Amino acid sequence: MKIGVLGTGMVGEAIATKLVQAGHEVRMGSRTKANETAVAWAKRNGAKASAGTFADAAGFGEVVFNCTKGEYSLEAVRAAGESTLANKVLVDVANPLDFSRGMPPSLLISNTDSLGEQIQRALPSTRVVKALNTVNAYIMVSPSNLPGEHNLFLCGNDTAAKRQVHGILTESFGWKSESIVDLGDITGARATEQYLPLWVRLYGTLGNPNFNVRVVIGPPPKLG
Amino acid sequence: MKIGVLGTGMVGEAIATKLVQAGHEVRMGSRTKANETAVAWAKRNGAKASAGTFADAAGFGEVVFNCTKGEYSLEAVRAAGESTLANKVLVDVANPLDFSRGMPPSLLISNTDSLGEQIQRALPSTRVVKALNTVNAYIMVSPSNLPGEHNLFLCGNDTAAKRQVHGILTESFGWKSESIVDLGDITGARATEQYLPLWVRLYGTLGNPNFNVRVVIGPPPKLG
Repeated sequence: MKIGVLGTGMVGEAIATKLVQAGHEVRMGSRTKANETAVAWAKRNGAKASAGTFADAAGFGEVVFNCTKGEYSLEAVRAAGESTLANKVLVDVANPLDFSRGMPPSLLISNTDSLGEQIQRALPSTRVVKALNTVNAYIMVSPSNLPGEHNLFLCGNDTAAKRQVHGILTESFGWKSESIVDLGDITGARATEQYLPLWVRLYGTLGNPNFNVRVVIGPPPKLG
Repeated sequence: MKIGVLGTGMVGEAIATKLVQAGHEVRMGSRTKANETAVAWAKRNGAKASAGTFADAAGFGEVVFNCTKGEYSLEAVRAAGESTLANKVLVDVANPLDFSRGMPPSLLISNTDSLGEQIQRALPSTRVVKALNTVNAYIMVSPSNLPGEHNLFLCGNDTAAKRQVHGILTESFGWKSESIVDLGDITGARATEQYLPLWVRLYGTLGNPNFNVRVVIGPPPKLG
């Protein structure tokens, strides 16, 4: 499949590299055509890897991953182009973290809105799926690096788009189908983005970003 | 130990009842002295159970649990009395859920503040420990009802207070010591309260409140 990856940071690189390894053709997009990180990444990753602008990557991909920093994501997807992204599946991996108040970061958007929803509103014809934003880049593309069962959350308004993302997560990234929890429509992004303060706090407590949560479920309580 | 429980709802009743069963003397507090739910609870639970106002319960307990609804918690702890609660350990179990916008609830406080911190600021001489607010009442007092390992988060500014609460959680409620994660000072309440939107969303998805999360930790990633 042809896939676009917006963003050249740790997350963008991890996802783009894994997708190439899984056999996809991947174009990494950034603000400028000659972004050194993107060009170097493409050079390292063979014939299936290429680099370009956000719009180039968005035009290239049947599916596009938003791996930009949350504070720049709306700008990045608008630069990619509303019409270029129309009807395409956009996997939003970003978190709206606010580092301007110091560490640990707070959120730029929270409570009754989310970055996932803002991107969906900015691109009404694009099928936005929020996923992968609750784990670090290593776990995103290599979930078996963590021992035992653990879960990934996904949400979005379009069922077929979620099914397609589910397929990439399982076939290309190695997530077990039964580990992926569908939280419903795109307002579920409020839940997964607001989990970030707990993630950040656990990172500080554990001193290690290599963790995730497993949802442990018991029988429904007997009432009355 | 003498323990006060503020609140007569499902959480207050579950905690107060379990504490009596564990051998503690418990006074359940509510807005009025003759609250029917509290009086009936005391009657059902024998000589170690009593009922009174918020101030009665706060004065009675060496340790006091805030189990009121989050939207009323500041009012309740102020009614309990700043001087009455001075130097005592207050376990804040409440979540600042906002049901006024419909279901699922959003948060009344979020991002750069939390109910736990607001209560600590309102009662500067009280040693506030945020705990138990990430699981439903059944799991709070009977963690072994859920199969396998799962975690509980706790935070607060006072180390001795956290140690005392840790003791109640393990000895009276049955939490395993190694399942309790100390997230540091009371600002950790932002993390556990903002986890609630994910909890609420999972409840809707699973159709069952009998769940919790386990933090699955792998080896630190090798860098460079």
